Amino acid sequence: MRNANRQWRLKRRPEGDIKPGDLEFTETPKPVPAQGEILIRNIYLSLDPTNRIWMSDMDQYMPPVEVGDVMRGGTLGVVEQSNNPAFKPGDIVIPGLGGWQDYVVAPFAQKIDKGPLPLTTYMSVLGMTGATAYFGLLDIGMPKAGGTVVVSAAAGAVGSIVGQIAKIKGCRVVGIAGSDDKCKLVTKEYGFDACINYKRENVLESLKKHCPKGIDVDFENVGGEILDAILTLINLNARISLCGLIASYNAKEPVPGPYMFRNILMKRATVKGFIIIDYLPRMSEFITDMSAWVAQGKIK
Amino acid sequence: MRNANRQWRLKRRPEGDIKPGDLEFTETPKPVPAQGEILIRNIYLSLDPTNRIWMSDMDQYMPPVEVGDVMRGGTLGVVEQSNNPAFKPGDIVIPGLGGWQDYVVAPFAQKIDKGPLPLTTYMSVLGMTGATAYFGLLDIGMPKAGGTVVVSAAAGAVGSIVGQIAKIKGCRVVGIAGSDDKCKLVTKEYGFDACINYKRENVLESLKKHCPKGIDVDFENVGGEILDAILTLINLNARISLCGLIASYNAKEPVPGPYMFRNILMKRATVKGFIIIDYLPRMSEFITDMSAWVAQGKIK
Repeated sequence: MRNANRQWRLKRRPEGDIKPGDLEFTETPKPVPAQGEILIRNIYLSLDPTNRIWMSDMDQYMPPVEVGDVMRGGTLGVVEQSNNPAFKPGDIVIPGLGGWQDYVVAPFAQKIDKGPLPLTTYMSVLGMTGATAYFGLLDIGMPKAGGTVVVSAAAGAVGSIVGQIAKIKGCRVVGIAGSDDKCKLVTKEYGFDACINYKRENVLESLKKHCPKGIDVDFENVGGEILDAILTLINLNARISLCGLIASYNAKEPVPGPYMFRNILMKRATVKGFIIIDYLPRMSEFITDMSAWVAQGKIK
Repeated sequence: MRNANRQWRLKRRPEGDIKPGDLEFTETPKPVPAQGEILIRNIYLSLDPTNRIWMSDMDQYMPPVEVGDVMRGGTLGVVEQSNNPAFKPGDIVIPGLGGWQDYVVAPFAQKIDKGPLPLTTYMSVLGMTGATAYFGLLDIGMPKAGGTVVVSAAAGAVGSIVGQIAKIKGCRVVGIAGSDDKCKLVTKEYGFDACINYKRENVLESLKKHCPKGIDVDFENVGGEILDAILTLINLNARISLCGLIASYNAKEPVPGPYMFRNILMKRATVKGFIIIDYLPRMSEFITDMSAWVAQGKIK
């Protein structure tokens, strides 16, 4: 048990890729919980593409992290000290955005029932990652059995779950990822029907091959040229669930939208951006379905 | 009554703006209706932005007009000869897409009850134009009283009706049009709260001024830089009803999508393309509401 609180703070706003010196390592005294608060030691930190958005001073879905502040991040931790009768030391909790630091003090946190599953499950499949995949695919994508679903960043935390849920729903599922190893994981481990290595293949041509009936649902994590290839092949009334636009997060110059934007009109498609906090009131639907799928071995 | 059928045919696919020689004037014999068919003389022809799309050999919501064929277009006409007991000479009908010609033969057409309203009403407010405005705004845009609605091509056939419906629904309505005269029409005649002349004003700055609470609904007819300015100012959960992308119809090179595409994600907005044929099963809702609004003088 440390007495210092190790932290990574945002020192300056990155330009393009994150570089050494953009973040600064600091140590402050371990915080002390006030009356009604708990002291949580972070055990796991979730590193997500959206972290990069938070570092930029641009209009976004949450305020950006201020320069000088501890970097924001999702964590899972253990209660070390409690001034709140609802918690006791040893409780495993998700404090929400506990940040890139050892310790965080909070008035409340979501308690985790330690079951047979590893704790990291609650940071992934049964956490916000799984919920993002679940609602983004089912609520916005509305996949139908026999339809074709494309998932970009398919080997990623969210994408890999999206594809597995789409398989459960009876769809043809085609992933897009950035290496042959990732593609192998996507097809062999996660059971996608096909996976395209966008660094080696012509994405449009490969999509044509693997989606002979066109594309009904796109779970979009990337944007840029990949989204353009997908939009070229969407079917009438296609749904594009817009979860991320990784391709543009590091951009220094304004990035044009997809050249095939007009196909949203021509194919009467729907594009809907979302983040998982919109679905917090419906988390129980997700927990019910996902727990069953994990127990049945349908989701890895 | 003529014996020849004057026609405009597509002679070659236009590049950029339509130029003399892209269409060819021809005369053929007046067609003869077969058993069960009616001969319609077109009285009115609707010239719509979408005509330009039909001239191009690109992936679109209907097959393009073939080179050599009579140009496609919406018409209203009068029955001159009938071999169908449901119709008699003198009936006023909408044959759907009667084309750029004097005469068309069809097995069926939508009959119009000649009331006190001018016939052109059935080509505009109470026709497909009005229905496009009605469903595009209400079904996709879902305007709420007190919200802000922006309409591009606001002086146009569809846009002018969209704004008037949005006013009926209690919204702040800001139009965008291409001249001071059009803007005057939009505010004085159609009752929009404000109108921006995009040829003279900085659209983004003017939108900021006229939409102090941001933009909740965009009825989009134009695309391009205008859509970019709108996307910059959309509120959380904004709805973009994508009816047209006039700005790109004449483009010879691929046109980039909006630079602010990422705001669809950041603001968790919805973009939905549509055409009115998707709503044909629900036309009675439209006819009921719109007839009442026209009778009450609420829609001009």
